[in-house]
Amino acid sequence: MMADRAKVSRLLKTARGQLDGILKMVEEDRYCIDISQQLMATEALLNRVNREVLSAHLRGCVQQAVTAEDREEKVEELVAALDKILK
Amino acid sequence: MMADRAKVSRLLKTARGQLDGILKMVEEDRYCIDISQQLMATEALLNRVNREVLSAHLRGCVQQAVTAEDREEKVEELVAALDKILK
Amino acid sequence: MMADRAKVSRLLKTARGQLDGILKMVEEDRYCIDISQQLMATEALLNRVNREVLSAHLRGCVQQAVTAEDREEKVEELVAALDKILK
Amino acid sequence: MMADRAKVSRLLKTARGQLDGILKMVEEDRYCIDISQQLMATEALLNRVNREVLSAHLRGCVQQAVTAEDREEKVEELVAALDKILK
Repeated sequence: MMADRAKVSRLLKTARGQLDGILKMVEEDRYCIDISQQLMATEALLNRVNREVLSAHLRGCVQQAVTAEDREEKVEELVAALDKILK
Repeated sequence: MMADRAKVSRLLKTARGQLDGILKMVEEDRYCIDISQQLMATEALLNRVNREVLSAHLRGCVQQAVTAEDREEKVEELVAALDKILK
Repeated sequence: MMADRAKVSRLLKTARGQLDGILKMVEEDRYCIDISQQLMATEALLNRVNREVLSAHLRGCVQQAVTAEDREEKVEELVAALDKILK
Repeated sequence: MMADRAKVSRLLKTARGQLDGILKMVEEDRYCIDISQQLMATEALLNRVNREVLSAHLRGCVQQAVTAEDREEKVEELVAALDKILK
């Protein structure tokens, strides 16, 4: 992975802490709307991590794809990723 | 919360397991594109949980909002939730 | 429709004007990234219209669902809409 | 633009036809939920066009970025596009 590993790990641990919090909210039978908001906050955080990972990938692996074959492989991976992101 | 608590807890625990897996992938310096795909899979799962929670809320709390005041409160909460979902 | 009809029409006409602009960009063989940005701007505008329409629906039709049967019908429509929005 | 121009134009014209249909629904005061569904269908179509445009960009412009300078420029454009897509 090309992204800043310490930063990505830290964000993922925050997301895991949020998930633990949501599980507790569910067990304590908290209000649906509050649980929904926390779920969306965690999704937004994972989305931010994904942005970090993909930006670093572009700036690292794609930038360094010197041969046409290398670039073709990276491009096809990005097309597949985009198909999922923009589904 | 009006949703099936056992089901929601089970899905959230699956998401937490996936997050632990992603943290391990980051520590093992796995390929960016593979990490990105796992992140999107976990986001999709949390999105599914959110759907469960909000559907149950609609079928429970909103359905049971007998007075106009009750309905107004529920409606304003849903408008605020929609603003976040459709941002 | 419960939303402000003049406002919704005006936003939709703006979106149609943007689409005409994008069609022209395609015919003039403009740069992909610029076309992509305009497409996303139009999607964001339609998303805003959808928010207007659904908020007004909640504040109008759902608020006025006095009988349990009425509410059940509205609730099931909203559950179906949410399933599409959160897919 | 690297994408198939005839295909992209055809899809955009379909989207414009859908928008005209939605404007007519608004003028005819049709049901909010039906208008919302049509809005989401048009957004999904524009999203598909965006996917076409960006995939063709990757397979065209990025694939042909032979020099490091070229690649850097393309990569920074893609990072900016991703930031919007994953916002």
